[in-house]
Amino acid sequence: MSKLVIVGTVAFDAIETPFGKTDKILGGAATYIGLSASQFNADAVIVSVVGGDFPQEHLDLLSHKNIDISGIEIVKEGKTFFWKGKYRNDMNSRDTLATELNVLADFQPVVPENYKDADIVMLGNLHPLVQMSVIEQMDTKPRLVILDTMNFWMDCALDELHKVIRKVDVITINDEEARQLTGEYSLVVAANKIQQMGPKYVVIKKGEHGALLFHKDDVFYAPALPLKEVFDPTGAGDTFAGGFAGYLAKTKDFSFENMKNAVIYGSTLASFCVEKFGTERMETLKGSEVHKRLLQFKQLTQFEIKLT
Amino acid sequence: MSKLVIVGTVAFDAIETPFGKTDKILGGAATYIGLSASQFNADAVIVSVVGGDFPQEHLDLLSHKNIDISGIEIVKEGKTFFWKGKYRNDMNSRDTLATELNVLADFQPVVPENYKDADIVMLGNLHPLVQMSVIEQMDTKPRLVILDTMNFWMDCALDELHKVIRKVDVITINDEEARQLTGEYSLVVAANKIQQMGPKYVVIKKGEHGALLFHKDDVFYAPALPLKEVFDPTGAGDTFAGGFAGYLAKTKDFSFENMKNAVIYGSTLASFCVEKFGTERMETLKGSEVHKRLLQFKQLTQFEIKLT
Repeated sequence: MSKLVIVGTVAFDAIETPFGKTDKILGGAATYIGLSASQFNADAVIVSVVGGDFPQEHLDLLSHKNIDISGIEIVKEGKTFFWKGKYRNDMNSRDTLATELNVLADFQPVVPENYKDADIVMLGNLHPLVQMSVIEQMDTKPRLVILDTMNFWMDCALDELHKVIRKVDVITINDEEARQLTGEYSLVVAANKIQQMGPKYVVIKKGEHGALLFHKDDVFYAPALPLKEVFDPTGAGDTFAGGFAGYLAKTKDFSFENMKNAVIYGSTLASFCVEKFGTERMETLKGSEVHKRLLQFKQLTQFEIKLT
Repeated sequence: MSKLVIVGTVAFDAIETPFGKTDKILGGAATYIGLSASQFNADAVIVSVVGGDFPQEHLDLLSHKNIDISGIEIVKEGKTFFWKGKYRNDMNSRDTLATELNVLADFQPVVPENYKDADIVMLGNLHPLVQMSVIEQMDTKPRLVILDTMNFWMDCALDELHKVIRKVDVITINDEEARQLTGEYSLVVAANKIQQMGPKYVVIKKGEHGALLFHKDDVFYAPALPLKEVFDPTGAGDTFAGGFAGYLAKTKDFSFENMKNAVIYGSTLASFCVEKFGTERMETLKGSEVHKRLLQFKQLTQFEIKLT
């Protein structure tokens, strides 16, 4: 089992979908990544920050999932990062109704000493300078640094983002963001261009259309499980990343062939995340349920044509 | 080898894409279906109509691919169906610039006597009444009737379309059309509703996002091969259908497991179709090239997670 450092937001979300709405509930990239990675009993620490308003029960939830929370700074006099969003009817697009940075505005991440030799660093969506600071704090060069980011940073911190991209092994990014980052419409061409920027592996997330893994001339495609109903897409991308990183932490095999499996695990876990509001489904998810759904993924994708 | 009856347009197309434009070239649903099915040396006949302006060389091309053209009526004093379209920059949407029905307006399909006992009937996109007429001309009930249709008939001949849908075993339809036909956004729910209308198997085509095969509670997903460049999407859906039908005609196994393979063959052949304008790529396509690309499809989709 490799050590896994997760940096990202631990936050409050308020979510509205066509199926209903929530008050402030537990959210944040690092939360979803951690809950997902916990399926693999990864030796994971979350590096993040919350305010004095953050309930102990949320921290306890993470601890009970065997996630080390010693890297979560609590700013007693501050307020926790808050995001409020509303999904449109097609569930593929959403409007941000509120973003309150609060304690995140001055966040200086601190990697706990006993994780500075971690094999894997998962940089959840955050300001590229914060992501870079985590890389720089590592005592030994991690075997695998995975970066998740979004278009927001391309708009307002592109130079800093490029500096981080140069340092990472894997980038996970959605299709429109890959196009924005490269100016290329074809995802094959975009993935090639991103590899030239640094990462040897590029994962392009296409939401309900699945995810693509690129490495040199190799491509692997994992569909999203077709679902009767997507209840709340919040956190699906982070849950995917957490499953991807958690599986690699467990297996310690960073070959392309094993990354295919990591992508399948990521897709599998994301398919649960969207079934209920927020983190609800991931909080109660059992290994036996994951196993059953992996069988569904096999039936969904595997075929029998014999070729020599 | 089963006999295969293909009904659909044989036509002239004029196509404009961001990469260039063509004059009147060979097109039509039955043309693409036939060229694709010919990869399996299917004993196939095309039932269609052309005008006196249709070049003998186009008919010769089909004959040389071992497609029986005795079902193609030539109306000497008439003009061949003509479609002109222009693709937008994303290649996913197109505008129809001209549609001249010509001889298609009064088309009365005639299935040649020696194909009235065919095992498979592939109903390419045409007026539902024409499609129904072909079903009714069969002497023996075909083992498999496959229907392709489009939103145009939902708008202007919905009752007739529903009558045909009730008679078929497999429907191939694109995602937006499945939603329009059922009023359901979820493709899982839409596919269930379509099965209640008649077809036991539903294939939903998602263009660059691949295709889904539904049967009862089973789902299979075939991605589209990620390509550096889509040169011209015209005929891709028909090429998919032709590969699907041709493979089933060759193997005579209509189980869900074998239909998975048929979907993979359909996707594989469609991935060639879009590489050049019109039918150009399909005219010269070799079996060895198909074989090589099937290997790519395996690498693209197959993974190694061991589950019991």
